[in-house]
Amino acid sequence: MRAVDLIQKKKDGLEHTKEEIDFLIENYTKGNIEDYQMSAWLMAVCFQGLSDRETAYLTQSFIDSGEILDFSDISPYIADKHSTGGVGDKVTLVLIPILASLGVYTAKLSGRGLGFTGGTIDKFEAIPNFKCELSIEEFRKQIKDIKVAISSQSPNLTPADGRIYALRDVTATVDNKSLICASVVSKKIASGATSIVLDVKYGSGAFIKTVEEARELGELMKKTAKLLNHDIDIVISSMEQPLGQNVGNALEVIEAIEFLKGNYKQDLYDITLALAVKTLLNCKIAQNETQAREMFDNSIKNSFALDKFRELIKAQKGNPKVIEDYGLFNLPKKPLELKADKQGFVSKLDAIEVAKCAKLLGAGRDKKTDKIDYCAGVSLNKKAGDYVDKGETLASLYFNDISSVKIEEALKHINCAYQISDKEIAPPLLIVR
Amino acid sequence: MRAVDLIQKKKDGLEHTKEEIDFLIENYTKGNIEDYQMSAWLMAVCFQGLSDRETAYLTQSFIDSGEILDFSDISPYIADKHSTGGVGDKVTLVLIPILASLGVYTAKLSGRGLGFTGGTIDKFEAIPNFKCELSIEEFRKQIKDIKVAISSQSPNLTPADGRIYALRDVTATVDNKSLICASVVSKKIASGATSIVLDVKYGSGAFIKTVEEARELGELMKKTAKLLNHDIDIVISSMEQPLGQNVGNALEVIEAIEFLKGNYKQDLYDITLALAVKTLLNCKIAQNETQAREMFDNSIKNSFALDKFRELIKAQKGNPKVIEDYGLFNLPKKPLELKADKQGFVSKLDAIEVAKCAKLLGAGRDKKTDKIDYCAGVSLNKKAGDYVDKGETLASLYFNDISSVKIEEALKHINCAYQISDKEIAPPLLIVR
Repeated sequence: MRAVDLIQKKKDGLEHTKEEIDFLIENYTKGNIEDYQMSAWLMAVCFQGLSDRETAYLTQSFIDSGEILDFSDISPYIADKHSTGGVGDKVTLVLIPILASLGVYTAKLSGRGLGFTGGTIDKFEAIPNFKCELSIEEFRKQIKDIKVAISSQSPNLTPADGRIYALRDVTATVDNKSLICASVVSKKIASGATSIVLDVKYGSGAFIKTVEEARELGELMKKTAKLLNHDIDIVISSMEQPLGQNVGNALEVIEAIEFLKGNYKQDLYDITLALAVKTLLNCKIAQNETQAREMFDNSIKNSFALDKFRELIKAQKGNPKVIEDYGLFNLPKKPLELKADKQGFVSKLDAIEVAKCAKLLGAGRDKKTDKIDYCAGVSLNKKAGDYVDKGETLASLYFNDISSVKIEEALKHINCAYQISDKEIAPPLLIVR
Repeated sequence: MRAVDLIQKKKDGLEHTKEEIDFLIENYTKGNIEDYQMSAWLMAVCFQGLSDRETAYLTQSFIDSGEILDFSDISPYIADKHSTGGVGDKVTLVLIPILASLGVYTAKLSGRGLGFTGGTIDKFEAIPNFKCELSIEEFRKQIKDIKVAISSQSPNLTPADGRIYALRDVTATVDNKSLICASVVSKKIASGATSIVLDVKYGSGAFIKTVEEARELGELMKKTAKLLNHDIDIVISSMEQPLGQNVGNALEVIEAIEFLKGNYKQDLYDITLALAVKTLLNCKIAQNETQAREMFDNSIKNSFALDKFRELIKAQKGNPKVIEDYGLFNLPKKPLELKADKQGFVSKLDAIEVAKCAKLLGAGRDKKTDKIDYCAGVSLNKKAGDYVDKGETLASLYFNDISSVKIEEALKHINCAYQISDKEIAPPLLIVR
């Protein structure tokens, strides 16, 4: 078997066998197949696609390229959750303490964010002293002890995907459904979860732009997992406007704490509930959806989830006092406020423009080595569907150190994000399925 | 400008500007763009194509990446000829002495062959002591002195194409018309010729399979040259069966010498004449086609061309006695003969099967460093359209050193090459245009 022949085969639109996919991935991982051959193959895949079978083979090949975690000695049910990424997406911060407080073992491996805003790890690290770099032993022990842990230290999971993902990023071969699917599903299966819920986001602030594409990707991920004898639950949700109120690392932690105290934006509540219900059913904690919903609400009302969040912060060496004292986040005292220049209804709040603004303020990074300003971000006082008076605050911009050029640009983006109309507008649909 | 954005642009089917093509090629040549990005771009080109304008930009960019030769101090008319490659194609061996004997300055830079049979350089090197590695100064001086020279030492012509060609070869991105066109046309323009005739071959023994594709490629090459203010003449010819009688390096030199002595196969005569006529007109040596044909025939009849060939061999340190004494080639005395197992007409003589046979006998190479057996090859006693009696020799196989396994395989190929039918069959069409 030669790599060049397999590239030609895919270029010609033919289907690979399992042996061929394994040959490509194994030899690429070993360094026997060069980057330039893999990138040519990836580009051919972007044009010719992969069949469902090929996608499953690729996913399995990614899994087989590294370690596979196993927590079955701790519990037969281990939960994990993944989002394809969005603006203001702090669901993990609220979901995992809620689940753990209800008895679900939750093992969350996550990455640092690249792009407009931080990733989940960056958000947790906005809590003073919070330590995300757990060894796999520390990770296991904490799950056993308090039912929940989050770590950025992924062991050697799906290294083939790691290399290929980096290559896709610089060769314009990111946006193929099968490649995305294999990357996400392999990581989830390899990380040892038995209950996996995936939040597939579409719209302005997501890399998937339309609901149809999100649906197709969701279907494919479910089908792929099925072919590999795993079940994955899919939620399709809109990312036209940011999720919840805040965008930016410390700001999102504060919003998450407020959520657990019972003060939440409806959209963040809805999506978190949807993911929690599926997990509670999967892990046999709830008998039915009604019960799952009640358990969810109770965990907030009785502060079970807030207590679990405190326990999680303590276990990972963070300062739990932040829960009572947001001053510990050292947010800038006087944010810059964007005022409405006319009255009306917010007809649009464009997620990508908010994200670009937050990034310019210091909330995101371009390279892994770039520093993030945890305090930087945007708090959205008004969201789509809200009424606003002339002169009322639409959004507050938080930043520590920004040159005058960048602040002008940041303001331009947040201005572009808001559209105000005379007509009353219904809040946009959030969850499609 | 970033390479990844240009890859995305081509992937999306958009047209590049001249600046974008130059950016890609210049930075790739400098090593600022990696092989894996170039191969992804090449694959995107295979799917989305390049416009005529983009093809011309790419060609110019290849030319600009290296030296450009100029022989205008020697003559305003410098001829070159190129074939897209075929089996038994020894046209250059006969054409260049004929042209030079008629007063045409002919500068031929050529390469060693990869694949089934040797390249033109390999054929010349089958002449004992013939030296093909001329410096550019030696090359120039020889053209001035005897009007013709052939060299394998290409100076630093179109180095960008050189690197990209090597990459295409291992990434299944060879078969795109624009990429082929840019590669061939850039080399020809950079090598300083003013009269360029291109023999575009199609069929079993060529990499272009159909006459339509050959026509399209020919048109594109003509158009591309035109956009760069050069004229190229195109001949489209069939490569369904090998050209002439012999396939293999020394065997083809012998056939070329026989041709110059007036003993030729009609197909080799026809194609050589067609290319010569165009060149004689381009270089203002002949006034019209009739005159050009007469000059061509005279150069053979009066041994002008044979004398010029002797002069060429002498100038490049070869042994000119081969012209009179074929024994100097040391061909195996007793070739293995393939006999017809029934009488009838040769209805097909498949070029690729003959080539595979010749390769197994030792006439070709896989890697640049492989050694060629100059004596190895196949002499075709019968060609398509010929009548053959049962037991009569169809072909003779020449080889020095071949394991028993390989000879069986070689015989299988030469057997497959011939089809014999009861019905009389017209010899196939050779020149389409």
